[in-house]
Amino acid sequence: MNVFSVVGSQFTIVFMFLSLSFFATMLITPFFTDFLFRNKIGKKIRSVDHEGKKTPIFSALHKSKENTPTMGGILVWGVAALITLASNFSRTTYLPIFTIVSCGVIGAIDDLMNVLGKGSSGMRFWTKLAMYLVVASLGAFWFAGKLDWLSRGFLIPGVGDIFLGYWYVPIFVLTLVFVAFSANQTDGLDGLAGGVFSFAFATYTLVCLIQGNYALAVFCATLLGALLAFLWFNVYPARFFMGDTGAMSLGMMLAVIAFLTNTVYLLPFVGFVLLVEALSTIVQIASKKIFKRKVFLVAPIHHHFEAMGWPEVKVTMRFWIVSAVMSAIGLSIFLVSG
Amino acid sequence: MNVFSVVGSQFTIVFMFLSLSFFATMLITPFFTDFLFRNKIGKKIRSVDHEGKKTPIFSALHKSKENTPTMGGILVWGVAALITLASNFSRTTYLPIFTIVSCGVIGAIDDLMNVLGKGSSGMRFWTKLAMYLVVASLGAFWFAGKLDWLSRGFLIPGVGDIFLGYWYVPIFVLTLVFVAFSANQTDGLDGLAGGVFSFAFATYTLVCLIQGNYALAVFCATLLGALLAFLWFNVYPARFFMGDTGAMSLGMMLAVIAFLTNTVYLLPFVGFVLLVEALSTIVQIASKKIFKRKVFLVAPIHHHFEAMGWPEVKVTMRFWIVSAVMSAIGLSIFLVSG
Repeated sequence: MNVFSVVGSQFTIVFMFLSLSFFATMLITPFFTDFLFRNKIGKKIRSVDHEGKKTPIFSALHKSKENTPTMGGILVWGVAALITLASNFSRTTYLPIFTIVSCGVIGAIDDLMNVLGKGSSGMRFWTKLAMYLVVASLGAFWFAGKLDWLSRGFLIPGVGDIFLGYWYVPIFVLTLVFVAFSANQTDGLDGLAGGVFSFAFATYTLVCLIQGNYALAVFCATLLGALLAFLWFNVYPARFFMGDTGAMSLGMMLAVIAFLTNTVYLLPFVGFVLLVEALSTIVQIASKKIFKRKVFLVAPIHHHFEAMGWPEVKVTMRFWIVSAVMSAIGLSIFLVSG
Repeated sequence: MNVFSVVGSQFTIVFMFLSLSFFATMLITPFFTDFLFRNKIGKKIRSVDHEGKKTPIFSALHKSKENTPTMGGILVWGVAALITLASNFSRTTYLPIFTIVSCGVIGAIDDLMNVLGKGSSGMRFWTKLAMYLVVASLGAFWFAGKLDWLSRGFLIPGVGDIFLGYWYVPIFVLTLVFVAFSANQTDGLDGLAGGVFSFAFATYTLVCLIQGNYALAVFCATLLGALLAFLWFNVYPARFFMGDTGAMSLGMMLAVIAFLTNTVYLLPFVGFVLLVEALSTIVQIASKKIFKRKVFLVAPIHHHFEAMGWPEVKVTMRFWIVSAVMSAIGLSIFLVSG
């Protein structure tokens, strides 16, 4: 069913969907968290890093979060997917729904392995990477084949449309996977990733509206509504976390929307916090390997600020403010380029 | 000077101003807070209510905030007014600048009296009320005379334009003063009023843009930028508070913008949190007087949730989420009515 054929003003529909998914998610969440609590689907906090070394600072920062339920992200992508399937299902939303559901399911399996594995870190890194690469490649195939975007340009503001040919595919795949893993790095403080994604999808709701892509605007607004309700329960002290099932699917979703709207150049702005978080981890690992010393007290960077003495909520709220300002700057660049 | 005559795309200018005032305020703030600290311009926490009775719950909740510098709001209206005078000064922005500066100055005098008065509560309530009524009436005079809006309608969605004649004046004056005092009630937790106003002015930036009122959109964006920078330092644990000089001027400003855009019906939505805070105080006082019992553990309502056991930041962030959702709903009502 397609709701646009039934109701009038597109602008209004966008905000109706935001409210609908917000209130729907608010209603479901208490039952969902009760289920998670009863089944002890809580976060195991790692005590070793990717090389198996002890991580005392990280472990100290996280002790109080042990056993808080995780996998709250299922609510976000679940509600958004159901609402979209029920009333905004069209050629435009095939790819978003496919991406968010498949990444959500992979993330959920990973989260469950983490929970059941008693302190193990879920799937191995390379297994995860391979699975997300497969999803992104299937997305690229659809993108290239059905949407015929290989023949379209790739907009770079100030330069114009660049025609990438088949290079579009690896760029598409790598961007999706990079943003997803960045989101995973960002998801480390109560309310942090949820807030950052809220600003990102709010910005993309406006971008899609301005482009006249109403179906995608409605999809972004639906995600935003579910995210805001998730955030209600996820702010400090969090009642549950989004988990990989939330972070990976929302990250990949953000990149997909950037490609669908041909605004990949906006990702460093609306996803500024994600980018900085990912870079901080990469710089830290590289520096430890090459120079045998750390650049940050702890990576990703939100823990660095915590270790410097900022209260957790101060880091979260300041990163939200950064997201708001960078989103506004991104929006202005979009408006100049459009 | 009017910047629109110099630069091109109006949309871009709006976001340029947001960034400009954000970064300007970020640069100035450390010097300003140092000044406040050195001169001990810190908040005195009241220990009695409006009737002179002891307020033990209120006092306990606020002990840790004693001596945090106040009057941070000067930065917000100061930066916004200076930037607007320098580059967005026109017939449209006369009234906003007059309102924000005069309320800001009255609020600053009140804050200073509070600081210097050692535990007294600043000006007496009736003195304050009288002064704000004077400012609002001067605004109404300008509104009625120079902008000739007595002959224009007062839009109520679903009903249409209502012609109020001279009734416009008392409605204008009372709304301004009511929103200002509501803002004052809201300004009780770190980051609360600042965040609520950020969502309100972000919404009004969009409303003005959609109406094609670019000068006012730029003014709202300028305020928003300064507010976000203020918020950076005002989030928990707050480095300073906005004080009456911030709350009263921003509250009155919000109402002025609602009248200038003929969207007074939006105030209960974008100002939803302000309204609920004000009503909670009124209900509490009335109930104490009439039924000799309290409705809330403490009023205004943000303290009620604190007294129920929510951490301060949880109240703040949840009220922000409410603001975001209600603003989105307001925006959709605006789009239907427009």
